[in-house]
Amino acid sequence: MPTPARTAATPASPAATPRLTSKGRATRERIVAAAAGLMFENGVAGTSIEDVQLAAGVSTSQVYHYFGDKKALVKAVIAYQSDTVVGAQEPLLGKLDSVAGLRAWSDAIVRLQRSRQCQGGCPIGSLGSELAEIDDEARVDVAAGFSRWEQGIRSGLHAMHDRGELRRDVDPEALALATLAALQGGLLLTQIRRDTVALEAAMGAMIDHIASLVVAVPA
Amino acid sequence: MPTPARTAATPASPAATPRLTSKGRATRERIVAAAAGLMFENGVAGTSIEDVQLAAGVSTSQVYHYFGDKKALVKAVIAYQSDTVVGAQEPLLGKLDSVAGLRAWSDAIVRLQRSRQCQGGCPIGSLGSELAEIDDEARVDVAAGFSRWEQGIRSGLHAMHDRGELRRDVDPEALALATLAALQGGLLLTQIRRDTVALEAAMGAMIDHIASLVVAVPA
Repeated sequence: MPTPARTAATPASPAATPRLTSKGRATRERIVAAAAGLMFENGVAGTSIEDVQLAAGVSTSQVYHYFGDKKALVKAVIAYQSDTVVGAQEPLLGKLDSVAGLRAWSDAIVRLQRSRQCQGGCPIGSLGSELAEIDDEARVDVAAGFSRWEQGIRSGLHAMHDRGELRRDVDPEALALATLAALQGGLLLTQIRRDTVALEAAMGAMIDHIASLVVAVPA
Repeated sequence: MPTPARTAATPASPAATPRLTSKGRATRERIVAAAAGLMFENGVAGTSIEDVQLAAGVSTSQVYHYFGDKKALVKAVIAYQSDTVVGAQEPLLGKLDSVAGLRAWSDAIVRLQRSRQCQGGCPIGSLGSELAEIDDEARVDVAAGFSRWEQGIRSGLHAMHDRGELRRDVDPEALALATLAALQGGLLLTQIRRDTVALEAAMGAMIDHIASLVVAVPA
């Protein structure tokens, strides 16, 4: 991951700048959003600071002012994508405490992939796959992003379990992690095959499995 | 994906050189194996022709002689990794026609990830995630590699279905694809989390699902 040398003229600035004016926050946000879009399309290695600067309509020194180096920008992109993915799914993630809710969530993700012509895969998973072995801090940040997503699934399954709707011997946490894995694998295969068949098969099988673990609600 | 300009001194050579001496084949194989190892560790973008040349102990002109450009080398690496992954699993892939065979296969993959300290993820999936949006030919080659893998799983499930061990209404092809997706997602989460919990949860849930679709063998 090449990081162009910072010139003496650009002030060192911590990645998480504590105080920014509202204009500064907006500029920083615009840079991160532009970088996230480019990295989603071309990968981290395929995105230069110059590409980001051009796409965000700012100067190179502004990018370095807000982020210090490419590694810090990548860190901000991981946080941005985690917020975006989990944020966009929040209304559906809050309703994963039923088989119908799980299917509605899965259907929405399938529709989203279709609207993207099955390009790009998972914005968090793609970053993780590219960075895991070359930037350990990025790997840990991606893991944290996945955890937030997993937490949404887990809450729904825990609620079903607590209400006695899932068999007592079911481990909701293992099932939530398995569901996230099926989703990630389905998204990767969707990206590679350019169709949603694998995503539908994976999520369908996992949700069928969960449905098979549902018991009659106690009277 | 930067591809250094080929000098006039290096002859243009098709990627799939039709006739090579046994020494030529061995050199070509050594270059591909070295490139595959480096790309598994550092990604395609993080691996230069110079890195490959040094690791393989050959000259840069030899790399260009056998592969023409980096794109052709990447193509050879995808084929090599598909052969390696499917080849290594062949003895187990041939026995996926029972729940016990599926569990043995899954256990072997979990052990392999542990022996790698959960680093690297899937050699095919990682290439696919990195290349899908920037090299469409590579994406198609990765899809072909996945298909060979899927075929192994599908054969086992088809055999169970044909023998009447799986419920009649089960689609073995969808189930095979779902299993490959669970495996891929489990491998990605294993790489990101540096533990095999997600892989075990994903494969465990998918194989439990398959087990729940098994009916008593007709007398």
